[in-house]
Amino acid sequence: PHNIWNKVVEKANKAKKMGKDDPKKIIHSLKVGLAITLVSLFFYFKPTYDGFGVSAMWAVLTVIVVFEYSVGATLGRGLNRMLATLVGSALGFGAHWLATHSGKTGEPILIAIFVFIFAGIVTFIRFLPEMKARYDYGLLILMLTFCLISVSGYRDDEVIHMAHKRVTTIIIGSITSVVICILICPVWIGEDLHKLVAGNLEKLGNFLEGFGSECFRTSEGGQANNANKSFLQGYKSILSSKSSEETMANLARWEPCHGRFRFRHPWKQYLKIGTLARICAYKVEALNCHLHSETQTPMEMRIKIQDMCTKISSESGKALKELATTVKTMTKSSLVETHIANSKQAAEALKSLLKTGLWEDALILEIIPAATVASLLIDIITCTEKIAESVQE
Amino acid sequence: PHNIWNKVVEKANKAKKMGKDDPKKIIHSLKVGLAITLVSLFFYFKPTYDGFGVSAMWAVLTVIVVFEYSVGATLGRGLNRMLATLVGSALGFGAHWLATHSGKTGEPILIAIFVFIFAGIVTFIRFLPEMKARYDYGLLILMLTFCLISVSGYRDDEVIHMAHKRVTTIIIGSITSVVICILICPVWIGEDLHKLVAGNLEKLGNFLEGFGSECFRTSEGGQANNANKSFLQGYKSILSSKSSEETMANLARWEPCHGRFRFRHPWKQYLKIGTLARICAYKVEALNCHLHSETQTPMEMRIKIQDMCTKISSESGKALKELATTVKTMTKSSLVETHIANSKQAAEALKSLLKTGLWEDALILEIIPAATVASLLIDIITCTEKIAESVQE
Repeated sequence: PHNIWNKVVEKANKAKKMGKDDPKKIIHSLKVGLAITLVSLFFYFKPTYDGFGVSAMWAVLTVIVVFEYSVGATLGRGLNRMLATLVGSALGFGAHWLATHSGKTGEPILIAIFVFIFAGIVTFIRFLPEMKARYDYGLLILMLTFCLISVSGYRDDEVIHMAHKRVTTIIIGSITSVVICILICPVWIGEDLHKLVAGNLEKLGNFLEGFGSECFRTSEGGQANNANKSFLQGYKSILSSKSSEETMANLARWEPCHGRFRFRHPWKQYLKIGTLARICAYKVEALNCHLHSETQTPMEMRIKIQDMCTKISSESGKALKELATTVKTMTKSSLVETHIANSKQAAEALKSLLKTGLWEDALILEIIPAATVASLLIDIITCTEKIAESVQE
Repeated sequence: PHNIWNKVVEKANKAKKMGKDDPKKIIHSLKVGLAITLVSLFFYFKPTYDGFGVSAMWAVLTVIVVFEYSVGATLGRGLNRMLATLVGSALGFGAHWLATHSGKTGEPILIAIFVFIFAGIVTFIRFLPEMKARYDYGLLILMLTFCLISVSGYRDDEVIHMAHKRVTTIIIGSITSVVICILICPVWIGEDLHKLVAGNLEKLGNFLEGFGSECFRTSEGGQANNANKSFLQGYKSILSSKSSEETMANLARWEPCHGRFRFRHPWKQYLKIGTLARICAYKVEALNCHLHSETQTPMEMRIKIQDMCTKISSESGKALKELATTVKTMTKSSLVETHIANSKQAAEALKSLLKTGLWEDALILEIIPAATVASLLIDIITCTEKIAESVQE
């Protein structure tokens, strides 16, 4: 028992830390509590709604299931649920009507056949990638409503009344969720995606800016400033950000016009920039490997290309950071092109330096690491240019 | 309307193709249809269960919500749902009892306070990463049941009766889903993860085996065999497989003993191998960039290191493919070590070749691409070794 208590305390501390780090999560929790309490009290204080009876709980259920962290997710779920309930009720009623008009024995058989076919087809449609991305929840609810209406309709002949109650309560629940979600400290997922993409570009920029001094550092003063080297690891999160970016872009498409974002904001463009940033991150990963590799080019040889490499790296880093600002503020900046031009110039200088017999008497094996770094940096300029093009669009 | 019709036909064709490619998806759809029909008929033909009344629909609802593609996901959802309903009912009843014993005016206030606090806390707990990974659905249902029981309990004094009905129908629904999911053509997500990880190693192996001939191909006979070059692109899917691997490992932990897998199979080990494979894939990505880069080392210079590089690449490719077989069949193989030793030997030979003045009179700029390829290949050996270690565990 003492062991369990320790674990609980540990968890509680983690939760406390999370709440401090991200107060939005606490606000979200309070919002959910508020929405559920409101809906509960609504059905509690409205004796006129007594007609809903047990159906009132559908409203509470709807709030719990629909209320998500971001506005996009809540709206998507709410719209999916409302539309699917409407369509499902209509179809379910149709199936019920057909079944009841086919005699006592035919009825259960027909209903079973309808339910089997409908559930099978909808489940199959849910596998289609485009459907899964945006309408997965709606298809689930469509199947659910159809089955509930057509099956329970058999026992209770007030099918239409039941369907009507269900649709009304679900609409009340969905709208309450959406309204509270938007009115109280809304979390726009489109804005989060926007920040994520800009942040990724910035992380790449930070790495490249710091890379030069890190790579050509004399080994003595080396281990001193390990503390503020987090910028060298920041890019790692970009390597695996693909799926979260895609989910966010899908959810963002539900969001209405807000702040600087229109309703049909080109979210796909963010995915494009994200993909390019990821390709750039793969190259940065390769650069980072060289920082930690065992075989290093001797310092006296490295020193010869230090200036050029540092220049390329810091200029393309600056260009990327400028691009991040461009994305953030949604303005154009001529500085990007200047930085890219600067780094290109440095790359040309590096190339011609390499063409002259720079390390005449050196062993090829020793040249390799420095040479690789140089070629990676030149590749990164190309990447940066592509990102710049994509951002300008 | 003609336009819409075309779209529908197009979608239908896509769906048909998907069904042909993966008949398991059709089987799954039929399974869902069957499960729902069975549960519906059960409540249709059992007048003894008339006591359930509207609650019968909870069973249908449970099947629809719980039935997932893989056994792991279905079991996870089913267990989460059953346990959460039990705990939620008990807590909800407790809240209801406290509220009803505090007078007419205190009751709604107390219930509102309970619901608010409970919903807020549970929503916050859902943010904790460990909870989110395995118990997200359970926490949602816990909140749901608590609210339904404590709120609707006010109008209907048969709270216990209602809770009992709810728990029973949900257990019936969950167990039906799980049984049908396991008995008819089960899809084990653990097995899928197993295959995915092995397949990833194989893809890397295929690339490396083919890389040698691709890289040192004479440019004349070059463009002929573009058709069967898919092995050069296969590794791309590994770059972004992180999140799907994690989800699969989480779901796989729910699965009972099946086939060659025990209940507590070390799924985390697969994640480790997956991560190492991804690091290797980043290097392969860098290699692949060199295949398509504009600056190439002249052929007469490349030819000098061709043998060694091809040897390293194909031997480490073979080692990776052997490792894939090891993972697949869960046996040990001494061939892996032989292949790694071979490629190390080739790497040593390459290194000493590079130490002698191999390309004395060449421009450094021209050497770089070939040198980079050589150094990447040497890095890949290290990667392969790490993967081998991890697989042996």
